Amino acid sequence: MAKDKKVESITDMEADFAQWFTDVCTKAQLVDYSGVKGLFILRPYGYAIWENIQGVLDKKFKETGHENVSMPLLIPESLLQKEKDHVEGFAPECAWVTMGGAEELTERLCVRPTSETLFCEHWSHVLHSWRELPMLYNQWCSVLRWEKTTRPFLRGREFLWQEGHTLHATAEEAIAETKQMLEIYADLCENYLAMPVIRGRKTDKEKFAGAEDTYTIECMMHDHKALQSGTSHYFGDGFARAFNITFTDKNNQQAWPHQTSWGLSTRIIGGIIMTHGDNNGLVLPPRIAPVQVIVVPVAQHKPGVTEKAQELLAALKAAGIRAKIDVSDNSLGWKCAEYEMKGVPLRVELGPRDIEQGVCVAVRRDNFEKVTVAISELAERVPELLDAVQAGLYEKANANLTSHIFPAQSLEEAKALHDEHGGFIKTMWCGSEECEQRMKDEAGLTSRCIPFVQERVGDVCPICGRKADTTIFWGAAY
Amino acid sequence: MAKDKKVESITDMEADFAQWFTDVCTKAQLVDYSGVKGLFILRPYGYAIWENIQGVLDKKFKETGHENVSMPLLIPESLLQKEKDHVEGFAPECAWVTMGGAEELTERLCVRPTSETLFCEHWSHVLHSWRELPMLYNQWCSVLRWEKTTRPFLRGREFLWQEGHTLHATAEEAIAETKQMLEIYADLCENYLAMPVIRGRKTDKEKFAGAEDTYTIECMMHDHKALQSGTSHYFGDGFARAFNITFTDKNNQQAWPHQTSWGLSTRIIGGIIMTHGDNNGLVLPPRIAPVQVIVVPVAQHKPGVTEKAQELLAALKAAGIRAKIDVSDNSLGWKCAEYEMKGVPLRVELGPRDIEQGVCVAVRRDNFEKVTVAISELAERVPELLDAVQAGLYEKANANLTSHIFPAQSLEEAKALHDEHGGFIKTMWCGSEECEQRMKDEAGLTSRCIPFVQERVGDVCPICGRKADTTIFWGAAY
Repeated sequence: MAKDKKVESITDMEADFAQWFTDVCTKAQLVDYSGVKGLFILRPYGYAIWENIQGVLDKKFKETGHENVSMPLLIPESLLQKEKDHVEGFAPECAWVTMGGAEELTERLCVRPTSETLFCEHWSHVLHSWRELPMLYNQWCSVLRWEKTTRPFLRGREFLWQEGHTLHATAEEAIAETKQMLEIYADLCENYLAMPVIRGRKTDKEKFAGAEDTYTIECMMHDHKALQSGTSHYFGDGFARAFNITFTDKNNQQAWPHQTSWGLSTRIIGGIIMTHGDNNGLVLPPRIAPVQVIVVPVAQHKPGVTEKAQELLAALKAAGIRAKIDVSDNSLGWKCAEYEMKGVPLRVELGPRDIEQGVCVAVRRDNFEKVTVAISELAERVPELLDAVQAGLYEKANANLTSHIFPAQSLEEAKALHDEHGGFIKTMWCGSEECEQRMKDEAGLTSRCIPFVQERVGDVCPICGRKADTTIFWGAAY
Repeated sequence: MAKDKKVESITDMEADFAQWFTDVCTKAQLVDYSGVKGLFILRPYGYAIWENIQGVLDKKFKETGHENVSMPLLIPESLLQKEKDHVEGFAPECAWVTMGGAEELTERLCVRPTSETLFCEHWSHVLHSWRELPMLYNQWCSVLRWEKTTRPFLRGREFLWQEGHTLHATAEEAIAETKQMLEIYADLCENYLAMPVIRGRKTDKEKFAGAEDTYTIECMMHDHKALQSGTSHYFGDGFARAFNITFTDKNNQQAWPHQTSWGLSTRIIGGIIMTHGDNNGLVLPPRIAPVQVIVVPVAQHKPGVTEKAQELLAALKAAGIRAKIDVSDNSLGWKCAEYEMKGVPLRVELGPRDIEQGVCVAVRRDNFEKVTVAISELAERVPELLDAVQAGLYEKANANLTSHIFPAQSLEEAKALHDEHGGFIKTMWCGSEECEQRMKDEAGLTSRCIPFVQERVGDVCPICGRKADTTIFWGAAY
C-alpha cells in the first residue's frame, strides 16, 4: 500500500440500493465470492461479527437451559419425506449427494436445508419417559437451499445459522418455549444490534413447512423493505406422530411430545448493513462491532506521537474495549475512509498539537460528531461514547420504522401508500388466504405478520369487506 | 426412571476393546447413530466435550494472531483438480453433489473433505502486497470423507474439526508456523487432555496429500495402538503456484507465498476415551470435563439432606467449578454407576451422618479414592482434588506410553516385539520408501513418525542393513 493509495468509493444508496449493499459487503471486506453461485466466503471481519452475535445468543440459550449438539450434514431422502408438508416445502430446493467416492449411492442424500427430520429420528431413539423432558437442543451449523437468485447474507445457497429444536411434554410448554425464543431474538436485535422489531405471528400461508404456528420478528430496512430476522415455530405433535416419537407420561400412558424449532442466520448481518449503513459504508452497533475503537495517530512521523497513541490503545484495551491502532504509512485521509467503510463506531485521532494540550479527538461513526476528550479520561469516556453511538443508531432506526407504518382502509390505498413510501401497511384482515393472495397479486404486498400488539384500524377486511378482528402488517420483503 | 432402574453394563475392554469403545460412546451418551452410515450424532454430553476443546484451542489460535473465517461447503470438481497430489489423495473419498433442486448440475460439486483449494482460490483474489502477509486463518466446520469402515469419533464419513490455513512471505515463517501450531496441539493434549504425545515428522509416504512436510503428534491408547491426534502441514509454494497466488514483495518483485495448514478433529475425543477410560466407562480429564463434580445426596428423603447438598452445589458453582447435583429418585447405586459411566472426575456424597459430622465424601473417578472433606472447606479443596485427578490421569497415561516404546534391531525383532506388546517400535531407518513398505508388508507396522527428539538405537537400517542416521517410530494405528 503506497501512501497515495486510493480510497475505493461505493455506489450511493439513493442511486442503487442493491449495488450499494453489494459494495459495502465487498469493500468492507465482509465477504468474497466463491466459485459456486450463492456460496459466499465470510472473511475475518464478516465472520467476527457473526462470532459476536453467536456469543450473545449462545449465552442466552445456555442460560435458558439449552444444550448444543451436532446433527449430521446429510438426510436420506426417505427420512425427509416422513412429514408431508415439510418435504413439500423443502424438496424443491435441496442439493443432493448421489455419489460417494466412485460409487453411486442406493439412496440419494440431501444436504440439510434444516434439521427437523434428523432431530426427530434421534428423539425416536432416545426419548422414553416424561422425566427426560423437556429436551432443549441447539446446533450452530450451515445449511443449503438451492435458491435461484442469490445475494450475500440475504439469500445464499449456503448460510450459517443456529437451529434450536425442543421437545416438551405439553403443548403449553412448547408454545411458551416458542415465544421465549422469539423474545431472545428480539432482545438481540433491539439491545445489541440496535434494530427495532415488530413481533408477530405468520399467516398460515407464510408459516414454516410443517409448523402449526410460526412467530417472527420483522425489521425495517433503509429502503423501507422488511426483513424477516428470526423465526420460531410451534409444531404441535405433528412431527412426533410422523416420526413415532412417544414417551411414557406421569400417568404411565404413552403420549406424543410437542415440538418447537427456531432459527436465526447470517442474514441478520445483511439486516445490520441495511439498517445502519450509509454512503460511507458500514456502520456497526458498538455492542457487536469486532473493533469498537480505531486509534489513528496524526502526523505520526513526529516524535512521540506513535508512542502516545500506543499508550492510548493500551489504556483502552485494559478497560476491556475492543480497540486497534493503525500505524501504517497510509495517509490520514485513507485511514479515515477505511475505518468509516468498515463501520468502526469510534475513531480516536491524536496529533502533536493534541498531545501538547493533553487531549485527543473522538469521532463518532453514526453522526460524525467530534468530541475532544482529555487523554487521561479517554478510557473512562469511551464506554459512554459507545453507548451514545449504540443509542443513536437505535433511535435513528426506530424513527425510520415508526414513520413507515401506514394504516390503510382499502387495497387501493394500501397499494398507493406502499408505492409511495414503502414500509409496513397496517390493515384489518378477515383471515382468509384468498384476501391475502389478492393483496399480493393486486398490490404486490405479502403479509409480514399479525403483530402481537393488535391496534385496530377499522372493523372490516379492506379486501373483501367482511367483518375483521385481526390487524395485520403487509410489506415488500427481502 | 423407576427406583430400581438397572445400570447398563458395558463390555470389558480386555474381552473386546472395540466393543468396549462403542459401548462407552453410546452408554455415556456421547453419540447416537444416524440413518447414514458413518454420520454420527454428537449428543449434548459429547458435544460439550468438543466445546471445551474448542474453547481451549480457539483462545490459543487468537492469541497467536489467527482469525476465524467461513469457507463454502462445496468445491467444484475443477477447483479440486488444480493441485495434482492433493486431488489424487482426496478424490477417491469425496461425496458428490450432482443435483440442485430438480436440476442436474453442469459440474459436480464435492462436499469439502478439507479446504486447501477453497482457501487458495480466495487468496488468489485478495492477496496483493507483502504488507498483507501473513494471512492467518482458521475455520471450525465439518468435513466429509467417504470411508469404507466407520466408527464413532475414530473414523466417520463426517467429522467436526478445525482447519487452519496460513500464507507467509517466506518459507522460514511458514515452517515456524507449522511447528508452532503442532506445539499448540501438543499443549492441548498434555496439559488439558492428560495425553502425553510423541512429536515428530511424517515420512513422505504418510504425509498429507500435497504437503512438503507433515508434522504430527502421536498418542498411545490403552490397547497399545497409536492414534495420530493432530497434524500440521508445510506446503512450500506448491499450492500458490498451482492456484496462481502471488504478491508484490518488499523489493517490488512478484513472489509466491508459502503456505501451511493444520487440523485437529473430534477424533481426539476417541483418543480421550481410549487413553483414560476403564471398565466402568468414560474417565474425563477435569480440565475439559463438562461436569467436573457431581453432588449425590445419600438418603435424600431424610430432612435437611437435599437442602445441604444444594448448598454444597451452590458453593462449588460460586467457586467457578462446573458442578451438578442429582436429586432424582434413582438409587444411590444407580447414580454412582451413571456418573462413573459418564466419567465425571469427582463425586461428592453427602448423607445425614456426614452432615452431623460436618463432612462430605469426595470420590475420585481415576482411582476411586475416597477423601473425607469438611463441608466448610469443600469449595476450596475441590480444585486441588481436580488437579490431583488431572495429574493422576497424565501419570497413568505416561506410564503406559513410556513402557511401550521398544527399540528393535531387525525387522523380525520389531514384529515379535509388536506382536507381543503392541506399542511403538523404535528403529533406525535408511529413509527409503522400499524399507517402509517392507515393514508394513512383513511386520504389519506403519511408520508413525520421525520423532523430533532423535535417540539413536543403532547405526544401520534394520530392514536393508544400509547405514542409517534417522530414528523412526513404527506402530499399528487407528
